[in-house]
Amino acid sequence: MVKVGIIGGAGYTGSELLRLLSRHPQVTIAAITSRAEAGKSVASLFPSLRGHTDLCFSDPADDGVLQACDVVMSATPNGVAMTHAPRLLKAGVRVIDIAADFRIKDVAVWERWYGMSHACPEFVAEAVYGLPERHREAIRSARLVANPGCYPTAVQLGFLPLLENDLVDPTTLMAAAMSGVSGAGRSPHVPTLFAEASESVKAYNVGGHRHQPEIAQGLAQMAQKPVDFVFVPHLVPMIRGIHATLYGRLKDPAVDLQRLYEERYRDEPFVDVLPAGAHPETRTVRGTNLCRIAVHKAPGSDKVIVLSAIDNLTKGASGQAVQNLNLMCGFEETLGLTDIALFP
Amino acid sequence: MVKVGIIGGAGYTGSELLRLLSRHPQVTIAAITSRAEAGKSVASLFPSLRGHTDLCFSDPADDGVLQACDVVMSATPNGVAMTHAPRLLKAGVRVIDIAADFRIKDVAVWERWYGMSHACPEFVAEAVYGLPERHREAIRSARLVANPGCYPTAVQLGFLPLLENDLVDPTTLMAAAMSGVSGAGRSPHVPTLFAEASESVKAYNVGGHRHQPEIAQGLAQMAQKPVDFVFVPHLVPMIRGIHATLYGRLKDPAVDLQRLYEERYRDEPFVDVLPAGAHPETRTVRGTNLCRIAVHKAPGSDKVIVLSAIDNLTKGASGQAVQNLNLMCGFEETLGLTDIALFP
Amino acid sequence: MVKVGIIGGAGYTGSELLRLLSRHPQVTIAAITSRAEAGKSVASLFPSLRGHTDLCFSDPADDGVLQACDVVMSATPNGVAMTHAPRLLKAGVRVIDIAADFRIKDVAVWERWYGMSHACPEFVAEAVYGLPERHREAIRSARLVANPGCYPTAVQLGFLPLLENDLVDPTTLMAAAMSGVSGAGRSPHVPTLFAEASESVKAYNVGGHRHQPEIAQGLAQMAQKPVDFVFVPHLVPMIRGIHATLYGRLKDPAVDLQRLYEERYRDEPFVDVLPAGAHPETRTVRGTNLCRIAVHKAPGSDKVIVLSAIDNLTKGASGQAVQNLNLMCGFEETLGLTDIALFP
Amino acid sequence: MVKVGIIGGAGYTGSELLRLLSRHPQVTIAAITSRAEAGKSVASLFPSLRGHTDLCFSDPADDGVLQACDVVMSATPNGVAMTHAPRLLKAGVRVIDIAADFRIKDVAVWERWYGMSHACPEFVAEAVYGLPERHREAIRSARLVANPGCYPTAVQLGFLPLLENDLVDPTTLMAAAMSGVSGAGRSPHVPTLFAEASESVKAYNVGGHRHQPEIAQGLAQMAQKPVDFVFVPHLVPMIRGIHATLYGRLKDPAVDLQRLYEERYRDEPFVDVLPAGAHPETRTVRGTNLCRIAVHKAPGSDKVIVLSAIDNLTKGASGQAVQNLNLMCGFEETLGLTDIALFP
Repeated sequence: MVKVGIIGGAGYTGSELLRLLSRHPQVTIAAITSRAEAGKSVASLFPSLRGHTDLCFSDPADDGVLQACDVVMSATPNGVAMTHAPRLLKAGVRVIDIAADFRIKDVAVWERWYGMSHACPEFVAEAVYGLPERHREAIRSARLVANPGCYPTAVQLGFLPLLENDLVDPTTLMAAAMSGVSGAGRSPHVPTLFAEASESVKAYNVGGHRHQPEIAQGLAQMAQKPVDFVFVPHLVPMIRGIHATLYGRLKDPAVDLQRLYEERYRDEPFVDVLPAGAHPETRTVRGTNLCRIAVHKAPGSDKVIVLSAIDNLTKGASGQAVQNLNLMCGFEETLGLTDIALFP
Repeated sequence: MVKVGIIGGAGYTGSELLRLLSRHPQVTIAAITSRAEAGKSVASLFPSLRGHTDLCFSDPADDGVLQACDVVMSATPNGVAMTHAPRLLKAGVRVIDIAADFRIKDVAVWERWYGMSHACPEFVAEAVYGLPERHREAIRSARLVANPGCYPTAVQLGFLPLLENDLVDPTTLMAAAMSGVSGAGRSPHVPTLFAEASESVKAYNVGGHRHQPEIAQGLAQMAQKPVDFVFVPHLVPMIRGIHATLYGRLKDPAVDLQRLYEERYRDEPFVDVLPAGAHPETRTVRGTNLCRIAVHKAPGSDKVIVLSAIDNLTKGASGQAVQNLNLMCGFEETLGLTDIALFP
Repeated sequence: MVKVGIIGGAGYTGSELLRLLSRHPQVTIAAITSRAEAGKSVASLFPSLRGHTDLCFSDPADDGVLQACDVVMSATPNGVAMTHAPRLLKAGVRVIDIAADFRIKDVAVWERWYGMSHACPEFVAEAVYGLPERHREAIRSARLVANPGCYPTAVQLGFLPLLENDLVDPTTLMAAAMSGVSGAGRSPHVPTLFAEASESVKAYNVGGHRHQPEIAQGLAQMAQKPVDFVFVPHLVPMIRGIHATLYGRLKDPAVDLQRLYEERYRDEPFVDVLPAGAHPETRTVRGTNLCRIAVHKAPGSDKVIVLSAIDNLTKGASGQAVQNLNLMCGFEETLGLTDIALFP
Repeated sequence: MVKVGIIGGAGYTGSELLRLLSRHPQVTIAAITSRAEAGKSVASLFPSLRGHTDLCFSDPADDGVLQACDVVMSATPNGVAMTHAPRLLKAGVRVIDIAADFRIKDVAVWERWYGMSHACPEFVAEAVYGLPERHREAIRSARLVANPGCYPTAVQLGFLPLLENDLVDPTTLMAAAMSGVSGAGRSPHVPTLFAEASESVKAYNVGGHRHQPEIAQGLAQMAQKPVDFVFVPHLVPMIRGIHATLYGRLKDPAVDLQRLYEERYRDEPFVDVLPAGAHPETRTVRGTNLCRIAVHKAPGSDKVIVLSAIDNLTKGASGQAVQNLNLMCGFEETLGLTDIALFP
């Protein structure tokens, strides 16, 4: 059994980690911290976990328990993991940060987008970007994994086969993506109230979203050249789910896109390429670690349209973190991640 | 008072027409037909109208009442208005078709997309496309108005200032649009059940949607040249609303987009250009005839992003039909169309 | 034109007042105050009002404008109106409090339930409870109107014909009521986030809800004796609407309930008794000042079931306040309140 | 491994059975029939099951496979299981009917409520009502189990401790219950469209609902005397979940209700009595086989209020059927039923 600690478990990524790890056959949750909720039982905060766990939140200042863990998973807001990581790594603990502290290799870019100084820039280069479909081998041996953002997971998996094979004009990339409201977290704000977010949709942060540089970095690595990537996120009235609609100009419109995607993802346990002509629905991946993808040629055009659907809290956050944990610990990659989405 | 008849009033565009026309100060509803509901009171089918109307549905075969109207508005499925229009026009009745029968000028294209033969191709050329922001003067004197589709209204109003001024590369146009479920109509089908459409999003008809040729026709007219326009519609869990996110490459990224849009729409009563940096929400136009638009330059790119929001049943269907009726009858263009959206 | 001031207009009852009063033909809004939003334009806070108002929020400390009004409507949280009312009344301004400060006649009871001392208990007796269907004549001449709560409006209108006619055992009264999430107001809290309130229902405050004593007071007045009234409110995933399901034991199960209700409410412009066997839907009253009611005998039982539906922000708050304003000013009671609910 | 056949698997109870049985460690699904979908793959109809099953729907006329099963679970509309059951039972197959054919012991009552003649009244007496918390031992050895309805499960579990102990006046029982829209099944009808059922609530079938006699039969058995039970079901805008609010007059208001409920359900794996003062939320049981219950004394009254929450498709249908299967086969009662509800 692997001893896992969770930092900052009182939000939605924390509760999703608890849901997944409570039933993981090779994991013991040694501690879950929350400054605000320290002392309370997990089940009192998350009644869905009543009967499944006896844990109580502890104070993150009690560092001893975390240092005795094999792996610590950080589910805090941005900027917290970087204050814990050096100490934990020094103590021999491996770290998975579900927030953004170690995702962007150019520290100056990170500091500009996240509006703070990086507390440990010396670890950024070492951190492995935790997208197993791109970096599986590096993840297995990583000490520090930067778990990808939710939009970045959906968008990068959608563009990956095109860019790795130089099939699309890198100056024409665009993603219009929709997220469920849980992506905004559990802190209460007016725009995410039910009465504000229901029965309406909107785009947001069109002037600049933090996931744009993260995605652009990943796409440029795949393309091995710079990209012009336009990102438009939208808020839609559902709890969970991300759907990304990707657009680009094909260099050769005659390429067999369906075959390309099926072959690239044939052995991936969590990427499901749908049959030609299909359209993924976010509900079919809800609560699962799957990314469902469909690829279409735009009719009467030289453009490609890729549709990519994930659960923002599972493959887009905590589920992918467990997938990375499995890789780091040498477990079967799908261990604890085989739930079937509720239907309906 | 103008005598108005409604054909096929038992669906959502019909009920929206009734809501708007019941309180219109210059309109008398002379008849509302529905083959399936003939004989039933309107209020029994639409309880929201209890106390606002004493009308009963009549059989569309009783043509006399319709022929005695000044204007007939057709809210039927596609392919029905074309069977009524010649007779009504001959009787001196002006016709507004809210469905698609007269929208596409190339009859062969229409027949391919709608899968039927056109019953009166000789009237297609005469029909005026009822987008007042483009064709106001022609609408005033039209005998036959083809009311635009919901997506086409949102998308064309969004691209219009760019294309009329040749500011965007016409081979790079894309719209990712989201529609509320009422856009699929009131006929019951599995995919529009609450249990299927709630808590999920999906793209649909990426391989070809009937509004693509309608929009492409309009955009080409604005640009005065062919366009490569890619259209990706999505279904989102809300009742009413369309949000279109438009993308294209700017020929000159230095153009003052905000000023362009504000000037183009300065005198338009139903197009509201939001301040720079804003994002329209569909709920702010719900039940109104407004189109709210925001224009953004994509950061670090030569692309433009336009956000356009309407209510699919109002500006996207019945409200715009009333706007056209007002123009045809010489009324104030906003008559009966001044409701304020519910908030929240 | 009547000059109306609004105190505390930045919440949902405030925005609903603005929606209704902006188009009211006999009202000028002289001022709208909000401590938190002073100086901001109303349209920037409520984008649905863009183009319909040029008002800005002012500081409630600038009392002069309010004192120059004919009527001041208070849309603040509980406990604020009582601090303004004495000064305004002294200045000859009539006051409608949409919050709870003047609803409960027994000040000790009020203080226990609302957890504060009453600032002007001497005005409580004078205040007229603003349920026009019970107190219309008193409202016409009132200086101070206590606008009823949302649940109390739905529940009292449902029980009224039974209790006024002594037809139901007053020790058996129960209401299971459901409210949309807007009833909790615009202040952000975790339980009213979309991700918490969507796709779930729950009862709340079963151990005691502030509307219980308000309703019990009204029911006892109707019955002219004490009542045992059990109240169970529920939160349901919709924005607007209250549905109350009422239960009681009939003294004489042979009474003609349908006729009783139709006769009692025959002349009421805002109470719509549905045909026998019907079930009101909250969407048919959304954004309107209507209360739709259906009355059923429970099959095989001596119990009555009454179903009562209102919009919590309209007939349950701001719409009823405008109805009271109309009565106080001698206007047609329905002025500015004739909107038809959106369908769908 | 037990061989299980499913009749009528194309609806929501069928898909829920598939979700649960696909991962059940002791079950092999030998066949799943659907007249309408015969020949199609299960995954094409239920994309959430892609990768989890290779089954195809077969024709129910191919009876051989079913007769070779150990247990057949019928997820058909009412009136179908009774045409299959005699033949299957004769072949030695045990049968669990998730529909209503065998729930009501008085065949005349059943025929009146369900509007058809019973095809095998001789089996009704033998059938065991599959509420394990009442009939666990009889279920273990049953050949034919009548799985309870969704509302009946929530309501009976809520009243059970009161009635078994004669603590409540049986002439005062009332349940106001709310159901998610999936309870209406997958056949498309106007009232369950998203555009009709969203942003609204209503009561329905107040004049008589088929679950009323089923519940009344169960309550009378618990009370060992007739009951006056009033049932008011409501439709609320969520996919899954039932919440029942129960009301009755306590014979002795001094009874310790919290202790009563905790003791009665101490050993029940699927009934969770919440702490005093709590309110169950349906989302905490979504996709699980749990019934969460809270019991309250109505303040200032001699009435009891019980709140009971289940997932209508799991504990209210297919999950309880699997619980019964486990009992019939001698498995651990919770096998395959340990999922944790998604949060949020």
